[in-house]
Amino acid sequence: MKRQGILIIISGFAGVGKGTLVKRLVQKYDRYALSISMTTRAPRPGEENGREYFFVTKDEFERQIKENGLIEYASYCGNYYGTPRAYVEEQMAQGKDIILEIEIQGAMKVKERFPNAVLIYVLPPSAAELEGRLRGRATETEEKIAERLSRAAAESEGLEQYDYVIVNDDLDECECELHGILCAAHFTPGQNISFINELRNDLKKFQKGETTV
Amino acid sequence: MKRQGILIIISGFAGVGKGTLVKRLVQKYDRYALSISMTTRAPRPGEENGREYFFVTKDEFERQIKENGLIEYASYCGNYYGTPRAYVEEQMAQGKDIILEIEIQGAMKVKERFPNAVLIYVLPPSAAELEGRLRGRATETEEKIAERLSRAAAESEGLEQYDYVIVNDDLDECECELHGILCAAHFTPGQNISFINELRNDLKKFQKGETTV
Repeated sequence: MKRQGILIIISGFAGVGKGTLVKRLVQKYDRYALSISMTTRAPRPGEENGREYFFVTKDEFERQIKENGLIEYASYCGNYYGTPRAYVEEQMAQGKDIILEIEIQGAMKVKERFPNAVLIYVLPPSAAELEGRLRGRATETEEKIAERLSRAAAESEGLEQYDYVIVNDDLDECECELHGILCAAHFTPGQNISFINELRNDLKKFQKGETTV
Repeated sequence: MKRQGILIIISGFAGVGKGTLVKRLVQKYDRYALSISMTTRAPRPGEENGREYFFVTKDEFERQIKENGLIEYASYCGNYYGTPRAYVEEQMAQGKDIILEIEIQGAMKVKERFPNAVLIYVLPPSAAELEGRLRGRATETEEKIAERLSRAAAESEGLEQYDYVIVNDDLDECECELHGILCAAHFTPGQNISFINELRNDLKKFQKGETTV
């Protein structure tokens, strides 16, 4: 079966370590590529255009929306965030598995347009552990931590919409599980429809009494 | 996440080698158990009750149907074939992945009753290769080969009903892929619903303003 790239969506609560996980996968395996989002928010110190995000103006972003240049987008705290279509499709055509790190609303929109997309949710080992990790981030205030946990509770309602859930307890183990799931995801009928159709056509020749394939 | 057994259905055209594949998995990994079908057909020389099949009378089989003792059954060439429920449920409760080697009609019935069941179809590398393998079996007449290929063509229409398709080209590779898919199948939300619900409940405590989990 010819290898075709898949579209992978990774979501997870803030603080669960999904960014680290995704970075490790992309660094370790040549087959993965990371999608870069487009945003209208200003770059933070140290951020580079085309690395963390594609930084564009509001006009440019809205032009992309109009021209169907984004496979999903949302506005958050007064800024647009979206996934440029061209890069995603290019990578998949090259046989790469392209990873989108986005939230559930975006994930659902992508799944509608790309029904073969694989949706994975990264979970913490427990609520207490998630709280601990958020507290461990020096940058988070008490108020911010409470807000993130409350948001995690709300987000957890959508978990059944995902194809797979993994627990990020041990990072090595979780990376291995994630890679295994993504390997398995190449074996769905949808992902192998050309091979299936060819086999069907050849088998039908036997049904019609033709002797050679 | 606590490991719960999954119900695995393996189907495939006659001659594709699914029996060999399944036997290897069960011999190699302790986590897999093979379901034994019940039938009303007479044992063939060398077949043992409780090994190849549970051989029962028609009356006994019909009593099992009435008492909901079978998770699926069908009649074929005047004989009943079915999957006894008790053994399947016992093995899953013990955390084993139980493998059913059945055809698509049975597979669909099982999926209705066990929505978390994982359905896998084993394919030949090509129609020509399948024909070659059938010819390689000394027992098959020309007529029988034509019948099996014609049947494969008809069966191939149902492939999209399956969760995964694998190609049995190299047996080692195919076994490895199958095992990988079955590992991944443990990470669906449906398979981890107790863990998810516990996490949700704990996160909700934060939402309500309780400070400790």
